[in-house]
Amino acid sequence: MFYDAVEGISRDSLAALQTERLRRSVATCLASPFYGKRLRALGLGPENFNSPDDVRKLPFTVKDDLRAGYPDGFLCQPRDAFIRLHVSSGTTGAPTAVYYTANDVDSWSHLVARCMHAVGLRRGDVFQNMSGYGLFTGGLGIHYGAERLGCLTVPAGAGNSKRQLKLLRDFGVDGVHIIPSYALHFGHFLQQEGIEPGDLKWRFALIGAEPHTERARRRIEELLGLKAFNSYGLTEMNGPGVAFECAAQAGMHVWEDAYIAEIVDPVSGEALPDGEVGELVMTTLCRDGMPLLRYRTRDLTRFIPGECACGRTHRRLDRITGRTDDMIIIKGCNVFPMQIEQALMAMPEVAPNYLIELYQENDMDQIRVKVEIQDEVFAADDRTRAALHKRLVARLRDEILVTPAVELVRRGSIPPAEGKAVRVDDRRVHEDCRSGA
Amino acid sequence: MFYDAVEGISRDSLAALQTERLRRSVATCLASPFYGKRLRALGLGPENFNSPDDVRKLPFTVKDDLRAGYPDGFLCQPRDAFIRLHVSSGTTGAPTAVYYTANDVDSWSHLVARCMHAVGLRRGDVFQNMSGYGLFTGGLGIHYGAERLGCLTVPAGAGNSKRQLKLLRDFGVDGVHIIPSYALHFGHFLQQEGIEPGDLKWRFALIGAEPHTERARRRIEELLGLKAFNSYGLTEMNGPGVAFECAAQAGMHVWEDAYIAEIVDPVSGEALPDGEVGELVMTTLCRDGMPLLRYRTRDLTRFIPGECACGRTHRRLDRITGRTDDMIIIKGCNVFPMQIEQALMAMPEVAPNYLIELYQENDMDQIRVKVEIQDEVFAADDRTRAALHKRLVARLRDEILVTPAVELVRRGSIPPAEGKAVRVDDRRVHEDCRSGA
Repeated sequence: MFYDAVEGISRDSLAALQTERLRRSVATCLASPFYGKRLRALGLGPENFNSPDDVRKLPFTVKDDLRAGYPDGFLCQPRDAFIRLHVSSGTTGAPTAVYYTANDVDSWSHLVARCMHAVGLRRGDVFQNMSGYGLFTGGLGIHYGAERLGCLTVPAGAGNSKRQLKLLRDFGVDGVHIIPSYALHFGHFLQQEGIEPGDLKWRFALIGAEPHTERARRRIEELLGLKAFNSYGLTEMNGPGVAFECAAQAGMHVWEDAYIAEIVDPVSGEALPDGEVGELVMTTLCRDGMPLLRYRTRDLTRFIPGECACGRTHRRLDRITGRTDDMIIIKGCNVFPMQIEQALMAMPEVAPNYLIELYQENDMDQIRVKVEIQDEVFAADDRTRAALHKRLVARLRDEILVTPAVELVRRGSIPPAEGKAVRVDDRRVHEDCRSGA
Repeated sequence: MFYDAVEGISRDSLAALQTERLRRSVATCLASPFYGKRLRALGLGPENFNSPDDVRKLPFTVKDDLRAGYPDGFLCQPRDAFIRLHVSSGTTGAPTAVYYTANDVDSWSHLVARCMHAVGLRRGDVFQNMSGYGLFTGGLGIHYGAERLGCLTVPAGAGNSKRQLKLLRDFGVDGVHIIPSYALHFGHFLQQEGIEPGDLKWRFALIGAEPHTERARRRIEELLGLKAFNSYGLTEMNGPGVAFECAAQAGMHVWEDAYIAEIVDPVSGEALPDGEVGELVMTTLCRDGMPLLRYRTRDLTRFIPGECACGRTHRRLDRITGRTDDMIIIKGCNVFPMQIEQALMAMPEVAPNYLIELYQENDMDQIRVKVEIQDEVFAADDRTRAALHKRLVARLRDEILVTPAVELVRRGSIPPAEGKAVRVDDRRVHEDCRSGA
């Protein structure tokens, strides 16, 4: 039933395992330039950690710490122990790097294989990886996991829908990895090709790397004719394979044998009770090369209270509802793009693409939402469109507490993204930008 | 000195090893739909193979056999034994597929690691893979080999020169994998950025996947300030890692413990003596999932006679001088694009890009070579350019025995290819095309 026995471990045994591994991680971290200094300054060593909750004795690690430690300030092993690195960013901005030893790649692959097994994929199934490779951890991460599980892995890479379709058919693909915006795009491509959702053999899609709503997931399932499973990961915690839905599709089990997950108040940093939304903070328990202690993911989510029907004992994360740093402040309200997506996707007249534009008028910040609508609605009379427009404005205002300008546009007029979708176009010029700060 | 002991094996022991493995390959092949039928029809089994030369008892396997056997007519194991497949072609044309078991991926990775070790890379070196991933075997093939060797592998992927440069600098990269046309392009990018060849730490480039001349290799070495090593591979034989140069840069050792390599007359199919150019034919000796027997690679090359200074006993292949199927027949002469490249690259006035155009005039096939020339020559007076033009025409005529039209163009006017360079633009319309045959 499970890929490995630890999936059904009792909570008591899990706490003991976490404690042992937390101690080991702290011991390992003493060798890193960054943590070595920090731990010694605090007088903390492995002996100070006697329960998983003792992780709170540690200060947070933030993205800026990783930036300051670039390229190699977090390494705990000699250079020749490492066989891989991934980098988070391109030529601009301050990049961060994550390094992996052979053991790290091995345990990462194991976790990904466990995730794929949890959704129902098995050895011998055919699996097509429809995401880009290279520095994006979603490519190689899922690839290694699929091979580890024993799937016949088709490294299709991103884009080229026509070839993707040929591969899906020729090899009788059972499951795919695809990012949500491309999944929606590919669904429309299939419609154009006259392919019905049931024509393909596939049964499973792993979707991740982009925030998306429950409604978007159900659309993907309808369009593609399969079950779509949410995946959570971030490069700082290896990449994909951190938390994954099981067949119950009721939240993502975070692998607590490999990570300590906390939900904290993003302002005070205090722990929040199960069920409350806050910032996810993670500590690696199985990384030799570059452990991270209490890393603030900036992702907002909550633990789903209660037990899962599948029998796994690892707690479930709810879908990511936003990021602490993509919050838009407009007219004094805190708005998360995900709230807007959620409101739009609940309306069947809305086509999958939209764009949030932020601009200034009379020195005031303004928000406009461009929304693609279904062809039949777009072709309808003015009154029908005006009514839809009114409903959309009201719905969005209810959700974000600000009245946005709304523009209805023809389907296909917002360029579809084959990579991570860019949903916010911020044209505001602020004082601190003008001065070059 | 060697990555593994078999690199220095005596020829006698090698013959015994090849014979044993050839028998095993034939035995494995009996389970494949294609070979099972063929071998039984010929009454051949493992017992008929008592020396490596007995491979000649087998008929050739050609690309069209693989096409006819698509998608799975060559598999020798149950479906659930396979963990990877690569496909040779896109949406048009008849594709071919190569499948790998976990053992096959393992032995492939071992061979690639051996190649990288042979050029001088070592565990702990930093290695940037600057080629595309996905279905192209050059990406994952080199990646797995680099990790196997224990290099710190940076999966940069193709393109984005600015980011490539940042990675090369930030991580002190020692070696890269790069396709020759992109290496030349990247060299010019470095010049534009004001970077001298010696400014970067890198020492090794593995170049392959595209035919290129010795002159092109030396240009790459000068532009990049490193040693560039030729690599030979093809998806049907796994991908990269079939034959590789050692530090001596005097031909590519073909790993004869993993392959039986033959050079045959492309017309008669008869074996040619060492030193003569013919078509390379290969038999896999270490593949469980999809062995191929006497596969005609369509690549033209020769064995380099004599022993290599490095002490490796595996014979060396000369660089690929053309393909049996990219030969252009023009005015009754057989012309290989590589001959034209060779002639052009020998002239310092020529910039790295060129294009061969084939067209028709008065119902006759014509050839025109567009040649990018260095800026200072392009900016010179008419007389200088006319003199260069005359020398180029004469040089090409001497090489291909046909007088081509030659057009000198400004550097940068032929779009640089970041993928495999397309050097021939064939605009001829032949009768059999017109009729749709």
